[in-house]
Amino acid sequence: MAVEQVLHMNGGEGDTSYANNSTFQRMVMLTAKHILEESIMRLYCDTFPNCLKVADLGCSSGPNALLVASNIINTIDAVSQKLSHESPMFQFFLNDLFGNDFNTTFKLLPDFIKRLQEEKGQKFSPCFFSGTPGSFYGRLFPDNSIHFFHSSYSLHWLSKTPDALQDAAIEPLNKGNIYLTRASPPAVQKTYFEQFQQDFSLFLRSRSSELLPSGAMVLTLIGRDEQNELMNAWVVIGMALNDMAAVKLVEQSKLDSFNIPSYCPTSDEIRKVIEEEGSFDVQRLETIRTDWVKNVDVIDDEYTVVDEETRAEGVAKFIRAVAEPILKSEFGEEIMDELFIRFKNKIIKLYGVEKLEVANLVMHITKRT
Amino acid sequence: MAVEQVLHMNGGEGDTSYANNSTFQRMVMLTAKHILEESIMRLYCDTFPNCLKVADLGCSSGPNALLVASNIINTIDAVSQKLSHESPMFQFFLNDLFGNDFNTTFKLLPDFIKRLQEEKGQKFSPCFFSGTPGSFYGRLFPDNSIHFFHSSYSLHWLSKTPDALQDAAIEPLNKGNIYLTRASPPAVQKTYFEQFQQDFSLFLRSRSSELLPSGAMVLTLIGRDEQNELMNAWVVIGMALNDMAAVKLVEQSKLDSFNIPSYCPTSDEIRKVIEEEGSFDVQRLETIRTDWVKNVDVIDDEYTVVDEETRAEGVAKFIRAVAEPILKSEFGEEIMDELFIRFKNKIIKLYGVEKLEVANLVMHITKRT
Repeated sequence: MAVEQVLHMNGGEGDTSYANNSTFQRMVMLTAKHILEESIMRLYCDTFPNCLKVADLGCSSGPNALLVASNIINTIDAVSQKLSHESPMFQFFLNDLFGNDFNTTFKLLPDFIKRLQEEKGQKFSPCFFSGTPGSFYGRLFPDNSIHFFHSSYSLHWLSKTPDALQDAAIEPLNKGNIYLTRASPPAVQKTYFEQFQQDFSLFLRSRSSELLPSGAMVLTLIGRDEQNELMNAWVVIGMALNDMAAVKLVEQSKLDSFNIPSYCPTSDEIRKVIEEEGSFDVQRLETIRTDWVKNVDVIDDEYTVVDEETRAEGVAKFIRAVAEPILKSEFGEEIMDELFIRFKNKIIKLYGVEKLEVANLVMHITKRT
Repeated sequence: MAVEQVLHMNGGEGDTSYANNSTFQRMVMLTAKHILEESIMRLYCDTFPNCLKVADLGCSSGPNALLVASNIINTIDAVSQKLSHESPMFQFFLNDLFGNDFNTTFKLLPDFIKRLQEEKGQKFSPCFFSGTPGSFYGRLFPDNSIHFFHSSYSLHWLSKTPDALQDAAIEPLNKGNIYLTRASPPAVQKTYFEQFQQDFSLFLRSRSSELLPSGAMVLTLIGRDEQNELMNAWVVIGMALNDMAAVKLVEQSKLDSFNIPSYCPTSDEIRKVIEEEGSFDVQRLETIRTDWVKNVDVIDDEYTVVDEETRAEGVAKFIRAVAEPILKSEFGEEIMDELFIRFKNKIIKLYGVEKLEVANLVMHITKRT
C-alpha cells in the first residue's frame, strides 16, 4: 500500500475531524514542551539568525499545527528580551502529506497572527507561514535552508506496509492482526523494524542535507517498551476487527493480509538507527508513558466526573479521526460506525485490566559537524 | 469590505470551480510567456544560484497554479543545457489569500513532479513546492529570500473597496454601477486610482525587501486603454444587476453602494506608480489586448464551430468562477443562477457591438541596485 495516497487525518472542522479531536496529541506536545524549549533556545543562542527557519513535519490540520510555532515564538521572544537582543523574524513551514487538509489550518492564520500582534505589541517580529506538502521520507527543502525541525506523532508512520507482510503469494505472516501484538510471530517484529530502519534512516539523511550547520531536531513518536506490555489503539482496533470477522462483517482474508503501516520502536532501536545513520548526535532521549484513555479530553470542563461510557466514546472519536481514512480505504466506509462502536466497548472492558498506554519517545538530536 | 475575507476563486474541482474554468487565464499566461522566459533567463545567467527561489503571487487553485513553475523549469533547463551548466534546484512558493483552495493544487503535485522526473530523466533537478497564504499587500517572505516574483491576473484586485466609494453617510458616488464605467463621474476614477496607487506601492515596497539583489518580477494584470473604450466583465455584470434591480430582484440601494474592489489602470498610471515608489526599474511594459469572449475555450476540440449561445454560456461559467464568491457575499447566493443567465444574454447582445476586450499590461521590472 502506498501510504502517501491514503494516509491523512480526517479533514475539515466537523464532528469527526482531526481538528476537533486531537486534544491527546496536544497533551503529548505539552509533555514534550520543555525539551522543545530548551533545544530551540540553545540553537538560537548559538547562532542568532536574523530569521529563524523552522519546519514542523507531519503537522496535520487544525489548531495543533500552530502550537509549535506559538511555543517557539514565545520562547525566543523571552530569551531575546532577557539578553536585550532584538527578536528575529520567523519563517515556519508546515508539512504534511499531499492529501492533508491545509486549507483548514491556513484559515486559522489571520486570527493567530492578529493575536500574536496584540500580545507582543511593539516587540512583534514578523512571522511568515508556508505549507509544504510532501512525504518526509525524501527531500522537502533545499540544502542548508532550515535551522530547526520538529515532528510530533508522525514518525511512527512508515512509508509503506513492509513488503513481507503483504506478500499475497505466501501465507500471511501476521494472521488475524493488523499490527504487532504479543501474539505476532517474531518475524513480524523483524520485518516491521527493517522497514522502520530504512524509512527513518532516509528521514535523517534528508533532514541532515536540509539543515544549516548547528541545526537541530526535536522528534516525538510513539514507541514501545522493551517487554511489549503496553497496548496501543491499533491492537484494540485489531481485536474489534477480529470479532467482526467472526460474525462475517469483515472478510477474514482481508483482515489476515492487512497490516497498518506504522511501527513503534523501542528506545534502544531508535538510538541504534540514529547511530548507524551517522548524521546526528543524540543530545537527549526520553521515554514518557501516557495513558491514552485517561488523557483524552472528553469534556471542556475539568471538574465534572465522566462516566466510563462517555470517556470511551471520546476515545473512540479521537482514534477515529486518525484511523478512519486508512481503515476505510481497506475495509470500506460502511463498517466504520460499527467498528468504532465495538472499539468503544472494547475500551470499556479493557480499561483497568490492560495497560492502555503508549511509551512516547522524545528526542533532541543535533546535526553532526 | 475586507477583501481578504471574501475574495477567492471558486474552490474544488466541480463544474463551477476555477480549476475547471480558467482556460482564459491560461491563455493570457501563454501570451505573456515570452516575457517571463526572457526575464527568468536573464536573471539566472546573471546569478547562477544553486537553488532558484520563485514565488507566484495570486496563484489561485488548479492546474494554472503549476503552469508558471513548469515554464520556468523548462526555460532554465534549456539554458543550462546550452551552457553545459548543471541545472539548479528550484523552490516555488505558491501564494494566494487565506481562503484560497490550496488543497486542490497540492493534490496535483505528485503527478506533476512525476511527469517532470519522467521527462527530464537523469537531468531532473529537485524542485520543492510550498503554499504561502496571505495578502501580497504586505510582507509574505523574509528579507532577501526570493529571486523572482511572478503574478498573473491578481494585481487588479485591490486590498479593499476605496473608502470614499462606500461611505454610507453620503450619497453613493457610483450609483447604479459596480465598477468604473463610461457613465461614472470622474471622482470615481480618481478614488479608485488612489486606492490602487496606495496598494500597488505597498506591493512594490514589500517585494523589494523580499527580493535578493538582482531580483526581478514579471507581472500581468488587467489594464484599461486611455480612452476607456473597452468593456470588461464587471461592466457587463453591472448592467445585468441593474436590470435585476429594475424588476426588484436586487435591492437598488445595495447596488448603488456596492463597488468591486478592483481597478484596471492604464499603462501610464502604472508606470507613474512604479517610478514614484522608486524600488524598481521598468525593463519592459507591454499592452496586449485580448477579446475575453472569443478566447474562452468552450469545447476541447478546436475544429467545431460553436454557436453564440454555447459560447456565451462558456463565458458566463468562466466569469462566474471568478466573480461568484464576492457577488454572493453581497447579493446572496439565491440570485446567482439568474444573474449569470442574464449576464450570458447580455454577452449575446453586446458581442460584435461593443469591444468586449481587456488591455493586459505585462511588465518585467528589476530591483534597483
